[in-house]
Amino acid sequence: MPESNLSTALEYCQQNRGRFLEELKSLISIPSISTDPNARPGIQRAAQWLADHLEHLGMKNVQILPTPGHPVVYGESLDAGPGKPIILIYGHYDVQPAEPLDLWHSPAFEPELRGDNLYGRGASDMKGQVLATLKAVESITKTGSLNINLKFLFEGEEEIGSPNLGPFIAVNTELLACDFALNPDAAMIAADIPTITYGLRGLAYFELRISGPRQDLHSGLYGGVVHNPAQALCELLSGMHDAQGRVTLPSFYDSVQPLSEEERDELRRLPIDDQYYLEQCGAPQLSGEAGFSALERVGARPTLEINGLLSGFTSEGIKTVLPAKAMAKISMRLVPDQDPTEVHQQLVRYMEMNAPSTVTWEVIKMAGSPPSITDRQMPAMEALSQALQETWGKKPVYKREGGSIPVVAQLSEFLGVDSIITGFGLPDDNLHAPNEKLNLPNFFRSVEALTRFFCILGEQ
Amino acid sequence: MPESNLSTALEYCQQNRGRFLEELKSLISIPSISTDPNARPGIQRAAQWLADHLEHLGMKNVQILPTPGHPVVYGESLDAGPGKPIILIYGHYDVQPAEPLDLWHSPAFEPELRGDNLYGRGASDMKGQVLATLKAVESITKTGSLNINLKFLFEGEEEIGSPNLGPFIAVNTELLACDFALNPDAAMIAADIPTITYGLRGLAYFELRISGPRQDLHSGLYGGVVHNPAQALCELLSGMHDAQGRVTLPSFYDSVQPLSEEERDELRRLPIDDQYYLEQCGAPQLSGEAGFSALERVGARPTLEINGLLSGFTSEGIKTVLPAKAMAKISMRLVPDQDPTEVHQQLVRYMEMNAPSTVTWEVIKMAGSPPSITDRQMPAMEALSQALQETWGKKPVYKREGGSIPVVAQLSEFLGVDSIITGFGLPDDNLHAPNEKLNLPNFFRSVEALTRFFCILGEQ
Repeated sequence: MPESNLSTALEYCQQNRGRFLEELKSLISIPSISTDPNARPGIQRAAQWLADHLEHLGMKNVQILPTPGHPVVYGESLDAGPGKPIILIYGHYDVQPAEPLDLWHSPAFEPELRGDNLYGRGASDMKGQVLATLKAVESITKTGSLNINLKFLFEGEEEIGSPNLGPFIAVNTELLACDFALNPDAAMIAADIPTITYGLRGLAYFELRISGPRQDLHSGLYGGVVHNPAQALCELLSGMHDAQGRVTLPSFYDSVQPLSEEERDELRRLPIDDQYYLEQCGAPQLSGEAGFSALERVGARPTLEINGLLSGFTSEGIKTVLPAKAMAKISMRLVPDQDPTEVHQQLVRYMEMNAPSTVTWEVIKMAGSPPSITDRQMPAMEALSQALQETWGKKPVYKREGGSIPVVAQLSEFLGVDSIITGFGLPDDNLHAPNEKLNLPNFFRSVEALTRFFCILGEQ
Repeated sequence: MPESNLSTALEYCQQNRGRFLEELKSLISIPSISTDPNARPGIQRAAQWLADHLEHLGMKNVQILPTPGHPVVYGESLDAGPGKPIILIYGHYDVQPAEPLDLWHSPAFEPELRGDNLYGRGASDMKGQVLATLKAVESITKTGSLNINLKFLFEGEEEIGSPNLGPFIAVNTELLACDFALNPDAAMIAADIPTITYGLRGLAYFELRISGPRQDLHSGLYGGVVHNPAQALCELLSGMHDAQGRVTLPSFYDSVQPLSEEERDELRRLPIDDQYYLEQCGAPQLSGEAGFSALERVGARPTLEINGLLSGFTSEGIKTVLPAKAMAKISMRLVPDQDPTEVHQQLVRYMEMNAPSTVTWEVIKMAGSPPSITDRQMPAMEALSQALQETWGKKPVYKREGGSIPVVAQLSEFLGVDSIITGFGLPDDNLHAPNEKLNLPNFFRSVEALTRFFCILGEQ
């Protein structure tokens, strides 16, 4: 597409901002919560919304494809022909649960514009980013022609660890065949710093169950006689970190690639220091593995976190119960070359070594995906770099991300392709938390940046 | 009352068993859950049921007396005159919550007879015992005359730590003036071993709240940067016991009266060994403070238990959240001469010494009552011993009880009277747990024993 056509496309972006916003609100208002078995109608509606939208955009072969879980939405445009690259655009239309509901200032599924921000569950993670890819394609196709081939792959299970996407990709390798994938599910460092993510942490998620007495006991009649399962759970969990903040599971660090001095220097140049993290999270003080900066700890070091704790009586008031069982949800974020299956074995080994004989235990594997690193020298990475630079007026930074995107590993495994990972969410978007929001000026900029990216790829 | 009158009274007990059972079912079917603000109608109905019953028994001055919480039910019979002792009969008509409901084999508030047992919340703790006192009095008054003076004091807040009973007693010392109290809220060691409790542990109950980040965070984007409050809570809780099972709160054992060798010998003679506890609770193995038997740990040593744990995401499935806060309910069982107020200070001091600066914390006092010991040589204790021996055909055993009965300390403090503590519940009655039950043959025996006790007191 010649430069003049790019300007027309960008002009289209600008002129249609009002409608783009209305469409975004419509998509966010669908409660497509993948963790909640009762929210299936929302999942179905969101999938249908996207399929209709792809049809409307002129995409071919649009399908809602079933999986054992939530469906995948597919659509393609292959008119640019075999001389041009095929880009697989990935997105997920499912969202996290909205609880705790009482902390939202406006209802989670009634998107509300306050100042420059649109509030609603999924606004930033990642319905805003999904719509940005669609609106970039629309801006090009409505004003000229697309010089690249596109395939859209929208899943509905990212927030539950994409359990069915790997098998789906494995049996649909021909349908999904491509040169590389675009994954806009990451975030920017700040609103004025375009960001490309070249490393992602993997995830291993478990439920740990401890059982003691046959049933709940009276804490007066039995307190002091048995090992309280809640106590045993606390002892086991607190032993999973040492005084230096290192994870104590046996062999946990054995396959962790050390950070090179060169990469540490590069990360140090990012405008993200400990003070930045302190302000973002509002904790009294930072904490973590000794010897690494906050940015290194989040991006390049593995971690273990408690995601949930439950035992005994937790309502208002008092109940003098000695609980029969206790449960924790824990997850590890993994870096190359850790493997979720090995981490599962390490956790079981830790329990075998440390669990006292006064209780019984069970480790349940809930989700797992390996970490990944993308080659920063590939041409499509350079095209994205240029598109971001032209949109924001400054070179993007490259970072390693603490989160996990299972599909990146799945696409690598089954299609043999790399993923270009970027994204336009901001650090204060309250992902997975109450009052999730999307910064609208940034959203409109993201539509323009993706329009430029697709045009540059068409010229390569 | 001459011997022949006692036989008539005991005959009455036997002949009216069917009706006693129906009355018991009627009382148990009232959901008088004191912890639940929505259950107030059940509380009111139970109080009214008892007041009506006292009237029907011919008690005078029957009143439902308000407190800032749940009401007290009062009634008296002073016709025996000033030459005879006044006995204050204590009971509580409130019950524990029934949750978890799905573990009950029959609905908690629809009492069901299976075999020798009547199942229902409160059957053993302590509606059965309350009714036993009423039926003993009825058996005497319907067949002859009462040679002692009685005052009934039934409260509705025992299961929430009797927060309003102390002040109530303090301002009603004249109404409640008595020679001693009878408190049948303890339990028997076994169905064939009548038991008198001469020591009770006190209770100090707290909610411990830990806060970290401003709000829930994404565990991928922030995991490794802040101290997870659930992790901090586990570390603090697991530090509250040392490797010998001793509580580590500063000065916790300073005012604990050591067990004398004589008392240890006496406790060793009770037919309760570690195997007994193991069978009762069904844990894989016993646990607790080193150097003491299970019976000593439960009765004569202080303990600290976690009653509840809550943090982050605890529903089905996964949520990769780093929670903003974590909560534990913990309680200590106290022995002479520990004091709940001092224990509160010790807990706060422990937190000051051990809580890391990466989180903030709060200790909320929920309930507190001191421990107590009753003189085994007082004449009324001997009357009870005789009544139990005549009913069961063997001498009762004397034990120290792990549970706490706040009213015992309150009656001592405000009326200056001792409490005679006994009870007819069995160790497998599932107090505070699903499928609470009352053994009926034992219940009928308890009516007879109390009938004998009141008659013997009248002869003293």
